[in-house]
Amino acid sequence: LDVMVEILKRARMLDEKVLSYLEGGEPDKLVKAVRHYPEAGGKRLRPVLAMVVADAISGDSEKVLPLACSLEIIHNFTLIHDDVMDDDPMRRGRPAVHALFDMPTAIIAGDAMFARAFEVLAMTEVPHGRMRELFTLVAHTVWEIAEGQQLDIDFENSDTVTVDRYLNMIEKKTAVLFACAAKGAAIVSSGTEDQERMMWEYARLLGLGFQIWDDILGITADQEKLGKPVGSDIRNGKRTMIVLHALENADAERRELLLSILGREDASDEEIAMAIQTLDYVGSIGFARERALEYADRAIECLECLDDSESKDLLRELVVYSVKRDL
Amino acid sequence: LDVMVEILKRARMLDEKVLSYLEGGEPDKLVKAVRHYPEAGGKRLRPVLAMVVADAISGDSEKVLPLACSLEIIHNFTLIHDDVMDDDPMRRGRPAVHALFDMPTAIIAGDAMFARAFEVLAMTEVPHGRMRELFTLVAHTVWEIAEGQQLDIDFENSDTVTVDRYLNMIEKKTAVLFACAAKGAAIVSSGTEDQERMMWEYARLLGLGFQIWDDILGITADQEKLGKPVGSDIRNGKRTMIVLHALENADAERRELLLSILGREDASDEEIAMAIQTLDYVGSIGFARERALEYADRAIECLECLDDSESKDLLRELVVYSVKRDL
Repeated sequence: LDVMVEILKRARMLDEKVLSYLEGGEPDKLVKAVRHYPEAGGKRLRPVLAMVVADAISGDSEKVLPLACSLEIIHNFTLIHDDVMDDDPMRRGRPAVHALFDMPTAIIAGDAMFARAFEVLAMTEVPHGRMRELFTLVAHTVWEIAEGQQLDIDFENSDTVTVDRYLNMIEKKTAVLFACAAKGAAIVSSGTEDQERMMWEYARLLGLGFQIWDDILGITADQEKLGKPVGSDIRNGKRTMIVLHALENADAERRELLLSILGREDASDEEIAMAIQTLDYVGSIGFARERALEYADRAIECLECLDDSESKDLLRELVVYSVKRDL
Repeated sequence: LDVMVEILKRARMLDEKVLSYLEGGEPDKLVKAVRHYPEAGGKRLRPVLAMVVADAISGDSEKVLPLACSLEIIHNFTLIHDDVMDDDPMRRGRPAVHALFDMPTAIIAGDAMFARAFEVLAMTEVPHGRMRELFTLVAHTVWEIAEGQQLDIDFENSDTVTVDRYLNMIEKKTAVLFACAAKGAAIVSSGTEDQERMMWEYARLLGLGFQIWDDILGITADQEKLGKPVGSDIRNGKRTMIVLHALENADAERRELLLSILGREDASDEEIAMAIQTLDYVGSIGFARERALEYADRAIECLECLDDSESKDLLRELVVYSVKRDL
């Protein structure tokens, strides 16, 4: 079972479906802006997760497609607004929406996609009497994503971020949309209450592990695999879990050393190497790795509520991939 | 029946309710940004409209409150994003959200309010099997508002806007949310199919008339009543229905005269007076007034589907007010 092959097989099946929901409307500029990121492809992890969970519970991944696509559209809307806020000029190797068009168009396109996502969500066939719950789940998830984005921005100007507050932030900014996909799929597939709860927890832990592993890769991966210079997270002064752990646990001297390098865009390669060595010495990289692996173990335990199937195996492999991948 | 007294009586009843739906969440900055516009009060025309329609159909305006509040929250979210896009520093006499906080916070607050609006909408008690429809109605309305915003922005840089294209733009940017409030209220109140359709049409025409009257006031009202200098719409070069009609219908000489004044921020009071005189001479102010009054008449005809009641009278008075008000 090659997890990337299985993910991409499903992702390519979703491409057409997602884009079919983003047709029509005026003016052309808005429609083009709305389709710009979804047209770039990607792994489509959130809708794929919904499909695999649905398949594991009911053997039917078809019924979950509108929900799955609505979450992919929501994910892409948050990316557009994120890129405006960070003024990032690029995304997935293409110009960002606000760079290709303009800032107002990017804001409107994000809003329009959010609206369309709910139109698509409303097309989902839901077991009797559960519609309200599904809508509340998705709407509340987007509220939490907004909270996560705001916390992330506030953290950049804060000296009092702890590992726990960081975990709360990435849970909201990243993990809840995974959790929403998995729980939503369980609801649509008429899973048991236990399965709904466990799929939510599974995907939440998966999302946390995934994000922490991202932070680890940002420090330890090869430049070639990462697609950006080694140490750019350090030069940007990004407060990742690793950095936060080090600032909390290093002795005064090493803390000073780290603070003197973090966020300095002109830091030399030698200084970057020294910072990484320090993070390693303090045990912060190991701490993050252990935490990611712990989440992975707990995520896999959540799968016990499912009967054995190839989809269940894939959900397990997805966890292994998320905390062992090197790109 | 004093229409403003009746509107404001209901608006003040809604204040607490709307704000109660905007409690909770983190960080504080986000919650404050989310509550900033709703705390400023206002006429709350959209939720008031939903209440009065519900009362006219079923005598029960209580059941429609979550829907009504969700539309007020949506309206306020679009105001926040509008102000970011136009970089307007003020709103309702207070600093705009992006001016008081910052641009990222304003974008996130808008997104968060949109999400919360759907959580609130999901609390609405809806007649059996109509939930999906109500969600689709509201979501599609927001999609159309986004279209209207984009059209409005594109029009600023376009020389080919016609009166019809302008009407399409204001229908989407303004009128559909009124229409959604009235139709949504009819659905929640178990109105007949005819009542649903007529309430939608009533409120759409009301919204169009309201917006056109705004354009007329922007040119003819006293400075004191308008709260901004007479002629500021002309100095800003705003392409209102009046201006578009004049550019389409004036002879070459008067067209040149208008184009030489429109959009010139340093235009003298004498020039502004000349422009207004020209708009009047070409018949454009009269054209707009006739159009607004025609919409008003047609809106009132839509009320025939309702039994007589004080709420029906209020809906009629609301139309009269919308195209006769002088502020």
